Amino acid sequence: MLLEETLEKIRPLDRAVEILAQRRLDSLTKPQGSLGKLEDLALRVAVIQGRVPPRLGRKLLFIFAADHGITEEGVSAYPKDVTAQMTHNFLRGGAAINVLARHHNVEVEVIDAGVDYEFAAAPALRNCKVRRGTGNFSRGPAMTAVEARQSIETGIRLVQQVAAEDLFLLGAGEMGIGNTSSAAAMLCAFTGASPRDMAGRGTGIDDATLEKKIAAIERGLELNQPNPSDPLDVLAKVGGLEIGALAGVFLGAAAFRIPMVLDGFISGAAALLACRLCPSAREVFFASHLSAERGHRLLLEKLKLAPLLDLQMRLGEGTGACILMGLIEAAARIMNEMETFEAAGVNRKFK
Amino acid sequence: MLLEETLEKIRPLDRAVEILAQRRLDSLTKPQGSLGKLEDLALRVAVIQGRVPPRLGRKLLFIFAADHGITEEGVSAYPKDVTAQMTHNFLRGGAAINVLARHHNVEVEVIDAGVDYEFAAAPALRNCKVRRGTGNFSRGPAMTAVEARQSIETGIRLVQQVAAEDLFLLGAGEMGIGNTSSAAAMLCAFTGASPRDMAGRGTGIDDATLEKKIAAIERGLELNQPNPSDPLDVLAKVGGLEIGALAGVFLGAAAFRIPMVLDGFISGAAALLACRLCPSAREVFFASHLSAERGHRLLLEKLKLAPLLDLQMRLGEGTGACILMGLIEAAARIMNEMETFEAAGVNRKFK
Repeated sequence: MLLEETLEKIRPLDRAVEILAQRRLDSLTKPQGSLGKLEDLALRVAVIQGRVPPRLGRKLLFIFAADHGITEEGVSAYPKDVTAQMTHNFLRGGAAINVLARHHNVEVEVIDAGVDYEFAAAPALRNCKVRRGTGNFSRGPAMTAVEARQSIETGIRLVQQVAAEDLFLLGAGEMGIGNTSSAAAMLCAFTGASPRDMAGRGTGIDDATLEKKIAAIERGLELNQPNPSDPLDVLAKVGGLEIGALAGVFLGAAAFRIPMVLDGFISGAAALLACRLCPSAREVFFASHLSAERGHRLLLEKLKLAPLLDLQMRLGEGTGACILMGLIEAAARIMNEMETFEAAGVNRKFK
Repeated sequence: MLLEETLEKIRPLDRAVEILAQRRLDSLTKPQGSLGKLEDLALRVAVIQGRVPPRLGRKLLFIFAADHGITEEGVSAYPKDVTAQMTHNFLRGGAAINVLARHHNVEVEVIDAGVDYEFAAAPALRNCKVRRGTGNFSRGPAMTAVEARQSIETGIRLVQQVAAEDLFLLGAGEMGIGNTSSAAAMLCAFTGASPRDMAGRGTGIDDATLEKKIAAIERGLELNQPNPSDPLDVLAKVGGLEIGALAGVFLGAAAFRIPMVLDGFISGAAALLACRLCPSAREVFFASHLSAERGHRLLLEKLKLAPLLDLQMRLGEGTGACILMGLIEAAARIMNEMETFEAAGVNRKFK
């Protein structure tokens, strides 16, 4: 029972190191606190690692791709085939996330968590396909309970494999036409919010498509009656295979104490799923940005996480996560590389 | 008359390239506009360069150091000596800006624009000292009209020297104990705002020191009567030597059409000075972040610039500028390196 073993391992962080981290920050040649949220980032990384200053190392980002049966209801601005097409684009390095990952020196791994397409074997692609896309949740469950668990354990296993490898930061993103519908449905199930408040324009749908999307989510919730106190049931009834895998990565990161950088709306739904399975998991989470997708603000409030950036982005793929990974690395370097007042011979504040 | 020649060269940007830049952005494999403000950044760089996609190249940041006579009034939390001490720290690479510049691959040049200290010659330090610190503006003018012009022309000359060198982005920051007082006084002079609204806590002063700071600015404005419609007079009466040099860099960047990244409060005061000399200059400006320093929000409103980041930073040195330079480079790479829908074989939106 990999999931249960992982949940067992997740413990609240030891805050003792926070005092040491704060002392280190305050010894550096700058007015105390003058680097604002950069200092908070450095401090949190130190606490998660239990090390002052934090150790730098590899930055890795997983992109999970999966298809969604709900696209049959005409809820997206793009045809379903785009999930597989964009997966190829990731493998060729032509997508936004590839550019940002090169820029920030972040390694990318592409994972087929359930695309409705048989990819040829490729060194840069991991085949973790649970099934070829979810079922249409407006007409039945998205997946079985066994598949839901399998998707989460896929994510956990990926973290197990990389945790020992000098990993400094983990990021995660996704690609899946239709997945804002699944994410919104999960959020409604967990929080009791209405589909009208949670469904957004995703890749850019018009008013008529948005109405279809809201109606499809309403039907799906009505039909499937996901049990809000059973996170796996919510995932199985109205979720997505990449959302399950993301939640698994988040739980794995918490178990192995790796700073985990969230992306936008889909990633947030997965984070909420992870927190419903284990509330302490959120202590390793970093909310990268406030997405332009409707519902993300409320979602972050539920997660009690404050986003660092607001760039009006709504692409997914891990693009927001990747940008924050660069900023967290900068913050950790601040704690590592800045001179202290003593060493630099700089006078301290008068009092 | 270098200043007048430079002002002559500054023309409103040709917006024709904007259409081409937008078309390029919309051809890339992402929903239109889904990269939000990153797309705006890329587009603005393309328009400033007049080139789609924009050409990448060197990223250079100037740090201007200078002293302020107003420190005699006890307006700062740190002794005046810290200006020279931190200048040494910049040269040794131990300050926050050095760490961030290494992280973002930004070259740093340190310029003595008027520190009250004689530095030994050093390859990384440019001596552009106009005088050893300003006069105490609460008891007389900060500098003469000739010195004010000289400080601005120092900045212009620096840009002239680097403009041809494959320069992609220019950033600028400052160090000068007491300079939030000078910047606040200039802003009050230009905008009519009251010292109580514009004076902030700078490096972290307590209530009593803040009251002294407000009173000193009030006395300085009363005594010197800077003429708001004569920007050089405002600089001379209550400004700073690094503020003049920064304004010169900003004007030079506008003349040579180099994207110019502002930092925080001091840098904003210099930008306002530059805009009062030539309103079109602002078309090449990028407001990096909203500083935690009181008054910065109002200042950015006056400049009609929206900051990209809000990280509660208040350090100066160019730290905010440097972070945005990384983000602008990422944005420009997006426009250069992403695949188009056509080339990647990805379906476009349904309609």
